[in-house]
Amino acid sequence: MIYYNREGNVMMKTLITGGAGFIGSHLADFLVLKDYSVVAVDNFSLGTTDNINHLTHHKKFKFIKEDLLHLDKLKDIFQKNKFDIVFHLAANSDIAESAGNPGTDLENTFMTTWNTLECCRLFHVKKFVFASTSAVYGEATRTLSEKAGPVSPVSYYGAGKLASEGFICAYSYMNNIQSWIVRFPNVVGDRMTHGVVHDFIKKLKRNPKRLVVLGDGNQKKPYIYVKDLVEAMFFIYQTSKEKLNYYNVGVKDETSVTAIAKIVCDEMRLKNVELKYTGGSTGWRGDVPHYRYDLKKLNSLGWRAKYSSAKAVRLAVRSILAQ
Amino acid sequence: MIYYNREGNVMMKTLITGGAGFIGSHLADFLVLKDYSVVAVDNFSLGTTDNINHLTHHKKFKFIKEDLLHLDKLKDIFQKNKFDIVFHLAANSDIAESAGNPGTDLENTFMTTWNTLECCRLFHVKKFVFASTSAVYGEATRTLSEKAGPVSPVSYYGAGKLASEGFICAYSYMNNIQSWIVRFPNVVGDRMTHGVVHDFIKKLKRNPKRLVVLGDGNQKKPYIYVKDLVEAMFFIYQTSKEKLNYYNVGVKDETSVTAIAKIVCDEMRLKNVELKYTGGSTGWRGDVPHYRYDLKKLNSLGWRAKYSSAKAVRLAVRSILAQ
Repeated sequence: MIYYNREGNVMMKTLITGGAGFIGSHLADFLVLKDYSVVAVDNFSLGTTDNINHLTHHKKFKFIKEDLLHLDKLKDIFQKNKFDIVFHLAANSDIAESAGNPGTDLENTFMTTWNTLECCRLFHVKKFVFASTSAVYGEATRTLSEKAGPVSPVSYYGAGKLASEGFICAYSYMNNIQSWIVRFPNVVGDRMTHGVVHDFIKKLKRNPKRLVVLGDGNQKKPYIYVKDLVEAMFFIYQTSKEKLNYYNVGVKDETSVTAIAKIVCDEMRLKNVELKYTGGSTGWRGDVPHYRYDLKKLNSLGWRAKYSSAKAVRLAVRSILAQ
Repeated sequence: MIYYNREGNVMMKTLITGGAGFIGSHLADFLVLKDYSVVAVDNFSLGTTDNINHLTHHKKFKFIKEDLLHLDKLKDIFQKNKFDIVFHLAANSDIAESAGNPGTDLENTFMTTWNTLECCRLFHVKKFVFASTSAVYGEATRTLSEKAGPVSPVSYYGAGKLASEGFICAYSYMNNIQSWIVRFPNVVGDRMTHGVVHDFIKKLKRNPKRLVVLGDGNQKKPYIYVKDLVEAMFFIYQTSKEKLNYYNVGVKDETSVTAIAKIVCDEMRLKNVELKYTGGSTGWRGDVPHYRYDLKKLNSLGWRAKYSSAKAVRLAVRSILAQ
């Protein structure tokens, strides 16, 4: 059956894995507004009902609590729903947490992808959008282009994402699945569950006098506002027409960890907070202290982020505080 | 305990996974001659006792029949043997066979790597040499350099190898494991279990009048003689000193499938064999019909193959016929 939206466009039956998570739930908001019919699947390992409560009564939105590691259950979901497209966002996503336990990323970052791909193969889903990451590039010091190789992840998370990319390529070729591999930078916004912005707010709520900063504060990365990211992901999927599409998504500048600390203090109206650095160039083992994205490919396609890195951080802090 | 060989060099306690297989058993031959103490593990899915019978009474060689997918058994082997170095060669390796069943490469090509890496992490093995493949590059038409990106495998086999590479990078960084990722071209020699040379001989033994050739015969790839390959792998591991080392291994030219058919007929003393082509540019879905390796990095390190691609094929045919 083909569905049409109010403008007479063909409506897409969409699966969002990790659909109750930070980015997944923002994507659900975005797609429902675009009149897509959305099924969100999440195991609530990082996602929450709070992220999707406002959507659950929307007629275009359905939520299914399931763990993607249960392949048989996932097959049932695919069989019943006949998806046109999958946005695969489910992953461990907490790099620091999995450093001591590689099995976390093997299962939650990689095997979730493999199971989802298997279902796409078995139930003939022909469009697959994947949330990849700058972490696949590892510790590269140069500006990161999609053409960089060999890519050498330094975290199990980056490895799980690269492994996923590899199988997406093969599944795409072997089963005529058009695929978009979108390599995210650091993403910030409300509904975050971890990361430097989230941590700083949490710590400062506990102790507004003193903030412990992991590393020397000079780690410097691009941060994108979650609404910018979701828009970019959708734009890439709609605009880039290759069989297999790779894109870095980012903003044109970077923000240091110390600058983030200052923005957070400023937005929380805290003055004279003592910043206490743990030292060392990285926040934790597997952290990439600095990277810069080459965005020529995305810019040529016609997309640029609305917000700079520092502005994204500020917006994120505001929206988290308003949550 | 440190062991020394006759020349007073430190002896390495070595694990070869897939050690009863085609390449693994040749590597075992090579390392035993170098006075390495070798433990070969194999599940005999493609390996055979015939490949290692001549080694089993050698005091430097031990064989253990085990499937690397049994992580607990593998842990026992690591605990008992205290390896200094792992050569990880176990894999599905038959690309055509797994085309209909992605699970074969998920398990036999990727999970075998993950389990082996886990054991290296848990039992503090600090050197890891990996048999990777040109298949990670996918259908790239340009000359393949290690710096090429993004690499997009078109077979589940290539995906399983790329996924393995990703986790090797992360394990290497997180656990201080020095790693060598060696991307093999097509490899030929005695003890082969599949591939075009093996197939042609088998078919011509059945019917010496007529040979069915998959594709149009113009598929053109570099073939390396297995003894050359084993020497290259050892040379790279001994000579390249980075924490993480990537190398293409190959020969400077390529041989077409039709040329291989002619060499096989010639070596089998068969005249006027009718070549019957199935047509199409690839032999099967996931086959890469043509590639050429950039070997600058390996050549600068100081290694070149002894045999050209055509000579390698001829030597392989001879050694298979003499088996």
